[in-house]
Amino acid sequence: MPQNQLPICFLNGESINLISVSDRGLCYGHGLFETVRLSDTQMPLWDYHHLRLRKGANSLSISLDDHLLQGYLDQLIANCPDNGIVKIMITAGSGSRGYRLSDTSPNYLFQWFPLPDYPNNYQRYGVTLKLCQHRLASSPQLAGIKHLNRLDQVIARSEWDDEYQEGLMLDQQGNAIEAVSGNLFFYRDGSWFTPKLDQCGVAGVMRQYIMEELCNASSGSLSKIEETICSLDDLLSADEVFICNSVNGIWPVLSLENLVPENPALANQSSWPLGQQTLALQAALYKSLPAYMNSTE
Amino acid sequence: MPQNQLPICFLNGESINLISVSDRGLCYGHGLFETVRLSDTQMPLWDYHHLRLRKGANSLSISLDDHLLQGYLDQLIANCPDNGIVKIMITAGSGSRGYRLSDTSPNYLFQWFPLPDYPNNYQRYGVTLKLCQHRLASSPQLAGIKHLNRLDQVIARSEWDDEYQEGLMLDQQGNAIEAVSGNLFFYRDGSWFTPKLDQCGVAGVMRQYIMEELCNASSGSLSKIEETICSLDDLLSADEVFICNSVNGIWPVLSLENLVPENPALANQSSWPLGQQTLALQAALYKSLPAYMNSTE
Repeated sequence: MPQNQLPICFLNGESINLISVSDRGLCYGHGLFETVRLSDTQMPLWDYHHLRLRKGANSLSISLDDHLLQGYLDQLIANCPDNGIVKIMITAGSGSRGYRLSDTSPNYLFQWFPLPDYPNNYQRYGVTLKLCQHRLASSPQLAGIKHLNRLDQVIARSEWDDEYQEGLMLDQQGNAIEAVSGNLFFYRDGSWFTPKLDQCGVAGVMRQYIMEELCNASSGSLSKIEETICSLDDLLSADEVFICNSVNGIWPVLSLENLVPENPALANQSSWPLGQQTLALQAALYKSLPAYMNSTE
Repeated sequence: MPQNQLPICFLNGESINLISVSDRGLCYGHGLFETVRLSDTQMPLWDYHHLRLRKGANSLSISLDDHLLQGYLDQLIANCPDNGIVKIMITAGSGSRGYRLSDTSPNYLFQWFPLPDYPNNYQRYGVTLKLCQHRLASSPQLAGIKHLNRLDQVIARSEWDDEYQEGLMLDQQGNAIEAVSGNLFFYRDGSWFTPKLDQCGVAGVMRQYIMEELCNASSGSLSKIEETICSLDDLLSADEVFICNSVNGIWPVLSLENLVPENPALANQSSWPLGQQTLALQAALYKSLPAYMNSTE
């Protein structure tokens, strides 16, 4: 498997990094993507990514071919380093002008990227979030899907440079929903909670894995995780907080800043300890999926 | 100027119809577009399109270069037929993986398309709209901008084939906002109204032209047009209704169907006459911008 060969990119099985300007992914964001952790040629959460792709394709009227998907994925893995990130984009294909979906074939784009160079101490010692001013659009029909309409995240991410490690995004009503590139969990009064994603947000595969697998695996120490409407006050009064995604695993959250941007005189920060519940959940993750013990190379 | 040469497409001044797979327009919908009516090498609403591009670029942190824009536009017009549609896409450019905007240069994409082959009687005798089930996402921060995040329109347009001429889209609260590819106006009790676009919707240039120019040009016969919250009941009780965009001009709306899709036994259709107020507005448009008298070739 070749090293140091960039970009590693296959479009419909061809080694090419250009796509038609009439691709509906470009024209309208009519497509899906996944960023899949690759660890020693294995993809520990592949089944979850695959299921999400299938659901998303169904919602966006993209005729996903599982056989093609698997073949192109195998091709990429045979031609990329053993570790890193596999980015999959599947668009509705190239069509004629206009929103109407004509008889197009999906475009399958597979790319390899190195793991991001975040310091390992983010997962060990926690991170600081900026409270983003930009809020997520409300759309029950699109909530949960990892589609290519990502202006909310782009705008939110433009609110800081390097002074924070991540951003917290609220919905239109001011409820806490997720990080810019990850999902949110908080522990309070003996239970874990995560925001409902029925109006906005991306239903992350690590979120799902934590809810479905770690919950059971932790044999009683971790109670069932409840999906809830999470006001900012709910979050501020939590005992512990973390964010997660399929690239970085679990990052404990130590503080949230920029709470009252229009009035710096007010208390402008809230903080949480790096608590035992979060550490126990991380330990359970590392035991079941050792790849996430070390999120950088 | 060459005829019958398809596709006519320039990317940053080069005659090429491929774009990098790392373009942020493809990855995140981080870009803008305009569909500009070209009539005898002139673009009657260009100033409005240009202004909207500038506003949108500012909102999306895209450093639009007016000199480049004009040069590429001149290049396209020198190399395309005299009539048709100029589609302009301006994306944030090719960047590294992740939402963070690095130091990219925008991509300027200019394409020519023939005018759509809608029958001329749509503008003369009116159209039927489907009431779309899919609703527009709520996002005050993105409302009005003609950005590349267009899944709402894609999904709404997939709700019919050829049995309707257009679709009416509601917001999350059920208020009437716009057509899938156009804006909405209605006349009631002696006044014209158009839905407010502060939560969702695209602020169309034809809408703006009608509000700013035709209103004054019609010398009293057309009173000031009020932007309003427009419930479905408000629309159903209107005296006259039309939709408009910069490609087709003004289409009178004669009926709205699929009102109660879950109960076909109920009254499922509402209709309006092709009234004098709409005809007067069309006449004012044809007088000031004769290109729109004939919307097909």
